Amino acid sequence: MARYVFGVDVGGTTIKMGLFETDGVLVDKWEIPTRTEDNGSQILPDVAVSVLTKIKDLGLHKDQIEGIGIGVPGPVNERGEVPVAVNLHWGFTRVANDLESMTGLPVKAGNDANVAALGEMWRGGGEGYKNLIMVTLGTGVGGGIIINGKIIYGSHGAGGEIGHAHVEDAIEDPCNCGNCGCLEQVASATGIVRLAREALAGSDQPSLLRTGKVSARSVWDAVKEDDALAKAVAERFGSYLGKALSSFAVVSDPQVIVIGGGVSKAGPVLLDYIVKYYRKFAFTACKDVAFALATLGNDAGIYGAAKLMLAD
Amino acid sequence: MARYVFGVDVGGTTIKMGLFETDGVLVDKWEIPTRTEDNGSQILPDVAVSVLTKIKDLGLHKDQIEGIGIGVPGPVNERGEVPVAVNLHWGFTRVANDLESMTGLPVKAGNDANVAALGEMWRGGGEGYKNLIMVTLGTGVGGGIIINGKIIYGSHGAGGEIGHAHVEDAIEDPCNCGNCGCLEQVASATGIVRLAREALAGSDQPSLLRTGKVSARSVWDAVKEDDALAKAVAERFGSYLGKALSSFAVVSDPQVIVIGGGVSKAGPVLLDYIVKYYRKFAFTACKDVAFALATLGNDAGIYGAAKLMLAD
Repeated sequence: MARYVFGVDVGGTTIKMGLFETDGVLVDKWEIPTRTEDNGSQILPDVAVSVLTKIKDLGLHKDQIEGIGIGVPGPVNERGEVPVAVNLHWGFTRVANDLESMTGLPVKAGNDANVAALGEMWRGGGEGYKNLIMVTLGTGVGGGIIINGKIIYGSHGAGGEIGHAHVEDAIEDPCNCGNCGCLEQVASATGIVRLAREALAGSDQPSLLRTGKVSARSVWDAVKEDDALAKAVAERFGSYLGKALSSFAVVSDPQVIVIGGGVSKAGPVLLDYIVKYYRKFAFTACKDVAFALATLGNDAGIYGAAKLMLAD
Repeated sequence: MARYVFGVDVGGTTIKMGLFETDGVLVDKWEIPTRTEDNGSQILPDVAVSVLTKIKDLGLHKDQIEGIGIGVPGPVNERGEVPVAVNLHWGFTRVANDLESMTGLPVKAGNDANVAALGEMWRGGGEGYKNLIMVTLGTGVGGGIIINGKIIYGSHGAGGEIGHAHVEDAIEDPCNCGNCGCLEQVASATGIVRLAREALAGSDQPSLLRTGKVSARSVWDAVKEDDALAKAVAERFGSYLGKALSSFAVVSDPQVIVIGGGVSKAGPVLLDYIVKYYRKFAFTACKDVAFALATLGNDAGIYGAAKLMLAD
């Protein structure tokens, strides 16, 4: 009799849900809206109803279900508790405990970026490895550290919050976190736009970026067109991120570094710029770390949540 | 019947050895010379003889001994193997396996800096915590990362090699590791001397450091005398180290950061300069991390080695 596990990825507007066989085969996936009204009090009940309905619709029995893994956008401790999750309008919430009560199934909860890292390790760009650093380059910079197959939660749920490493003294406007000069401010999609605007303002050099809207995508498209100014922006981006990753590597000493998030759609050229600087600055023993692009896209969260539930 | 464990700390000239009760009470400690001749082939046999002699001399029975923990100066993997240990003249060595064969006792091996971190967690400056970063400021900068009470070995035995994080682009002379601009080059005893020499050469400002030999100790002594130039050196040191620690903290998210090694004999004033910059640059959730000075001095290695053997 087949065994199943649910993977749930709670975002600010949509909750992605997946039903997996325990060997990692995705059987079904669907979405429900995230209802943030009333301090997000409907979110976990909505998840519970959706899970129980799916079990019934597919004619499954609860004893075939290993449980539910769930990723949420906020710090999560090893008991599956969240002190606060701004995007969900949540205060302190016992995610694992509450969802267990509502479904009668075992539940494990983790931070969404950490869970995505676990997903990429299980069935994505980091498959076959047990020690990895994942960087998610989107609107912000998220991260997840996996050691011996397990997420590093951290003492304050801040394990893997690598977007908020300080990398630049010259930045004087604050990051969303309140500090100045975070990796997120120079390596996220918005950070790349910052670097491009600085480059455009700092010279009269002709560039494809001088026409149309400047976005992370337009920068990487221009890099692929051999645009000199865009390539200089890519060098700065690569220098910041490659150097930062070399510092993280002397802490956790990973086998592989996986790059995901919207920016990673730029493809292998993105890795070229990161890896060049990583190899330059990395400690000898860590220089040969593998690099990979994430492959699961928006499904990394549901894969990782499912794996979180299955991990010992 | 009391239970015992041996802790062994192999250095380049001396092997420190300790016999502990399993609750952490140090019963006896002694030293033997490190014989590096013949590719260090006598080192483990010497340890074995010393352990077996001690058991006999104290009238103990082998079944009272939990085993032997041993720290060595080199990368060590989780199987207790060392690819190379330059200071011991070792090539690939199965430390744990070989010492088990020679003694008939269980053995666990770890890197010396990592093991010292475990010692400080067990009975030193980090007592009561399970998640810590330890920094050893000596001739070089060593480190150890402990998560949930366990050493992070890393995929290449380089977990916690934080002395080789890149922190300064302007340094053009190489570190012992071959890279340029490592934390070790600005935060070790020799690094502090580098910063002091730069400050002395860069101005005519009067300073206590203009007379006598410049050492890390003379710098901190001058700081305590309110010497302006020495205090500027301490600020630079604190900025490099505090900022680097804030980057490591978003990886492992520790409860406490323990500062040890010869430089830490400067005392609490050292922490003042580090903590100031750590708090400035640390991610919000990690800002309140505790800081402590190491308390075990040269015994951290034998304590940590014993604890390594006892850890599950």
